[in-house]
Amino acid sequence: MTIDANAFYRLVASRRDVRGEYLPDPVPADVLARLLGAAHRAPSVGYSQPWNFILVNNAEKRRAVFREFEASRRREAEQFDGERRTRYDRLKLEGIMTAPVNLLVTCDRSRFGPAVLGRTQQPDTDIYSTVCAIQNLWLAARCEGLGLGWVSILRPASLKALFDLPEPVEPIAYLCLGYVSHFYPTPELEQRGWNRRLPLAELVFQDDWGEQTTDVALVQAIDDLSQKAAE
Amino acid sequence: MTIDANAFYRLVASRRDVRGEYLPDPVPADVLARLLGAAHRAPSVGYSQPWNFILVNNAEKRRAVFREFEASRRREAEQFDGERRTRYDRLKLEGIMTAPVNLLVTCDRSRFGPAVLGRTQQPDTDIYSTVCAIQNLWLAARCEGLGLGWVSILRPASLKALFDLPEPVEPIAYLCLGYVSHFYPTPELEQRGWNRRLPLAELVFQDDWGEQTTDVALVQAIDDLSQKAAE
Repeated sequence: MTIDANAFYRLVASRRDVRGEYLPDPVPADVLARLLGAAHRAPSVGYSQPWNFILVNNAEKRRAVFREFEASRRREAEQFDGERRTRYDRLKLEGIMTAPVNLLVTCDRSRFGPAVLGRTQQPDTDIYSTVCAIQNLWLAARCEGLGLGWVSILRPASLKALFDLPEPVEPIAYLCLGYVSHFYPTPELEQRGWNRRLPLAELVFQDDWGEQTTDVALVQAIDDLSQKAAE
Repeated sequence: MTIDANAFYRLVASRRDVRGEYLPDPVPADVLARLLGAAHRAPSVGYSQPWNFILVNNAEKRRAVFREFEASRRREAEQFDGERRTRYDRLKLEGIMTAPVNLLVTCDRSRFGPAVLGRTQQPDTDIYSTVCAIQNLWLAARCEGLGLGWVSILRPASLKALFDLPEPVEPIAYLCLGYVSHFYPTPELEQRGWNRRLPLAELVFQDDWGEQTTDVALVQAIDDLSQKAAE
């Protein structure tokens, strides 16, 4: 094992949720296979590997997903008023028709069931496993120079119907994927003034909710790290 | 950006869920801060960063978590019969009292709410964001030579009570973390005959559930990748 931790931290810091910078260049089959392979090596509760990957190549199906997105976006927009609504309306939030690859990641809630080791007390851990696979795929994409965007402004019931998912299979993530003209230096929602990064120190507790840590060295190390990240 | 994709794939392939090989060596504060920093740079729906990290140092609290684990494990064991039960009873499934670091990762379901961009149509995406943070932390730990184990044989209601979590905050993962004597070459549940890795080719569909992909180059690339992984 010769994994450079600093290289990994650079990777994590440079990963973005990409909506608008996709290039039309096709993603080679061997690259796509490696991404799916990284997803498939995610941790899974009781080694249940509950994921499937549905590539969405059919143009009519993509248009149907895009229409579902447009309707969902209109519903979501109504949740915001005034200046927030103006900002919301300006945001680009998906790359469904422009990204060369669209991928639906699902979770089969019946796989190796009904009793799965580690899932009997926390039934949603199969979904958590599927999300770990998605994060592996996302980081692998960034290593390969590919942008990925997770489109969550879609109703699960619509995705389930569109892709003929059987009853125990749930859609978890609809992903857009492709080479990009550039990656933003910081998250797009930060660039566009939607939200800011929270200070890490405020998110770390000890022994009970709301209790600040008494570990002076850790407080100092988090402070040093935050300073370095801001530079 | 100089991230070597092959190094990342080696990292992904060598990450393990660690239960029994923890060493007593303390985890330095700067290492722990870097792990938390990697978690905090995960993607989050609407940039909502819904996670918190509760370090569990108090010995009495750890014992209480361990007791909850023992009771949950007894309940789970009853789900398995015969040869499966015998195998189950032999498995080591947590490192609560032996790992130098215990960490509860939570999701604050009210953060920046009620309306969070990208969460109005899929309410659980805040939990998915929290899981992405956990997977970042897991991979970062492996880079630093640290083992991590996700203990899911614990009832969420018990964790919520033990750590005084407010109503909108949910426990997502109870993690054990520390240096280890060794990492298993393949997943422990594979080594111990609990389950096997599924063939990736059978998990990839196109356009609809159950439809094999017609992309011959992709099928070949997945086959090549699986051959290489098996070597």
